[in-house]
Amino acid sequence: MSDTAGKTIKCKAAVCWGAGEPLKIEEVEVAPPQAHEVRIRILHTGICHTDEYTRSGKDPEGLFPVILGHEGGGIVESVGEGVTGVKVGDHVIPLYTAECRECKFCKSGKTNLCGKVRATQGKGLMPDNTSRFSINGQPIHHFMGTSTFSQYTVVADVSVVAVNPQAPLDKVCLLGCGITTAWGAVVKQPGITGSTVAVFGCGAIGLGAIATSSLVKASRVIAVDTNSDKESWARKFGATDFINPAKLPEGQKIQDYLVELTDGGLDYTFDCTGNVHVMRAALEACHKGWGISTIIGVAAAGQEISTRPFQLVTGRTWRGSAFGGVKGRTELPGLVDDYLAGKVKVDEYVTHHRTLADIYEGFHDMHSGNCIRCVVDMQ
Amino acid sequence: MSDTAGKTIKCKAAVCWGAGEPLKIEEVEVAPPQAHEVRIRILHTGICHTDEYTRSGKDPEGLFPVILGHEGGGIVESVGEGVTGVKVGDHVIPLYTAECRECKFCKSGKTNLCGKVRATQGKGLMPDNTSRFSINGQPIHHFMGTSTFSQYTVVADVSVVAVNPQAPLDKVCLLGCGITTAWGAVVKQPGITGSTVAVFGCGAIGLGAIATSSLVKASRVIAVDTNSDKESWARKFGATDFINPAKLPEGQKIQDYLVELTDGGLDYTFDCTGNVHVMRAALEACHKGWGISTIIGVAAAGQEISTRPFQLVTGRTWRGSAFGGVKGRTELPGLVDDYLAGKVKVDEYVTHHRTLADIYEGFHDMHSGNCIRCVVDMQ
Repeated sequence: MSDTAGKTIKCKAAVCWGAGEPLKIEEVEVAPPQAHEVRIRILHTGICHTDEYTRSGKDPEGLFPVILGHEGGGIVESVGEGVTGVKVGDHVIPLYTAECRECKFCKSGKTNLCGKVRATQGKGLMPDNTSRFSINGQPIHHFMGTSTFSQYTVVADVSVVAVNPQAPLDKVCLLGCGITTAWGAVVKQPGITGSTVAVFGCGAIGLGAIATSSLVKASRVIAVDTNSDKESWARKFGATDFINPAKLPEGQKIQDYLVELTDGGLDYTFDCTGNVHVMRAALEACHKGWGISTIIGVAAAGQEISTRPFQLVTGRTWRGSAFGGVKGRTELPGLVDDYLAGKVKVDEYVTHHRTLADIYEGFHDMHSGNCIRCVVDMQ
Repeated sequence: MSDTAGKTIKCKAAVCWGAGEPLKIEEVEVAPPQAHEVRIRILHTGICHTDEYTRSGKDPEGLFPVILGHEGGGIVESVGEGVTGVKVGDHVIPLYTAECRECKFCKSGKTNLCGKVRATQGKGLMPDNTSRFSINGQPIHHFMGTSTFSQYTVVADVSVVAVNPQAPLDKVCLLGCGITTAWGAVVKQPGITGSTVAVFGCGAIGLGAIATSSLVKASRVIAVDTNSDKESWARKFGATDFINPAKLPEGQKIQDYLVELTDGGLDYTFDCTGNVHVMRAALEACHKGWGISTIIGVAAAGQEISTRPFQLVTGRTWRGSAFGGVKGRTELPGLVDDYLAGKVKVDEYVTHHRTLADIYEGFHDMHSGNCIRCVVDMQ
């Protein structure tokens, strides 16, 4: 038992006070975990586009003030009543996609989406409809059930998993979102071994999809990005080809180019951009009769995907995946072990480092073409 | 060998001379089948919305003059060199989706789309780039590789299948399109047994999807149609529920109503309308995490389907199927036998009869709410 157990902890956190405002480092009070809750000392966190999306105010469901962050790694400080999945001192990764193992979704065997804490998580609250964060008595919203931009956070016990303590948390924190999302989307898609793949977008998720396609021995992995600087990155992660759609002859669409290049289209494509026009291109680049396109990227609110229904009637399939279809509590420990065994890349994604004091600079890093992932040292 | 073998046959056919024009009964010359071609005496044909779509001029790829019709049954009159799949006297069903068993598509094991005659079929011609139909020396286009609105037609040998001669051709001609399309779309979709299904549209294809869902023991089959007269039809074919979206409280979308009615949405939905707005509703009526929506209906040219990508990212899948994914030469004989064994409904779809002389009246029948299928006696 730590000596802070059962007490409110004062610590530093990056708070976003309103839509479009910068992050400010504040002293926050973090209440003790209630029943079935876990308080975690966050050591490291990644910064992801979803954090920026909400910060920017573009997310119509964004709530403020809020402590953002959902790609973290830390150590359990204390647990509330009834917590059995983790214990004090465990090295853990918070999960924005919970896994309760009891709800209709968890028991379906068909999806990793869990219904247990979804409603309150969407409201920026803990399952009892209150917040554990406050500043001078003013409640601060939680974010995605994780809020890793705080030195201490509280999460539901279904929203956290213990991993091998030998794994460096400044690396495996990234398995809390991007890399796992890409890994799962590819490994859970049957048939990729021996097939052709195109990955649209060479950010962290795109590189993850490239690396995983290569890992499962796709016959060809075509990387697509409008930034030619990404070519060396894509090839380093396993791409066999790199195409910059901006450099095609005028008027040629990337999907038409790819269909021609691959004698009919790709067996599998992945959108890792969040751009709805790219999502369409990724679908239409699929081979007639069997091509499957998976949307991994998150589009801005209100945007819609479109295509002619003929594309589907002639045998293409359009699907998507959230957190890669990965059940975090069940599958993340194995993925961490795969990383430790050298089977899954993680270190290679880290291009930038920040401290909590300059975490907001990390948001700027993200927009530069040479940043894959910025990891923040929270302590 | 029939005594017409090797000779041009003069017979009657319904010809459409131009976009939007009515069908006219003309005397046409039907040239003998060339190598790998089969000449068929058509005894009966159904009329399908796709015939009307091309006749009306809405199909931008429509070619005129043309002999429409793609849902026929007949007897082989003669065969060209090298034909081994059927012989003179066989009872046959022409196939607008060919099956060559040699092309990349046929050999993939993943699709029923066949590439062998696709290009020439799309040009309204036989594989040697010429037509077998003419009137006073003027070539008339073939349609969908079948042209069943003629007393004699010529098709590629990969585009025809022999079936049990005990099956009445005035019934099993309907297996040339609609019923098979619906049957295949359902039976080839794993998981329907024990699951909830919604079928949008209660025309022949919709009723076929309802009947087949019931056949494979879906737990619930909800029929959706804006024509309340279809309720008794839907229930006769196995629907457990019928919903008229036009009668919902104002402002309530059918997808929202269905999600509420089914505690989260359907496991499987089928669009059998060809309406892109209904296609969207069918997708969005699917259960988060695992719902799969299949587009069977054919939309008008230029129309597009849309949805928010969130629908896919949260686990819904959008797919389609042409001719129900059925490989005609391999699978239709068994389907005919299933019909003869009482396992598959066919007779029940026939509501109207016409002769070749008044075939165009059959197009008007089709637009009346009480017509499921009109079968034309061609002789």
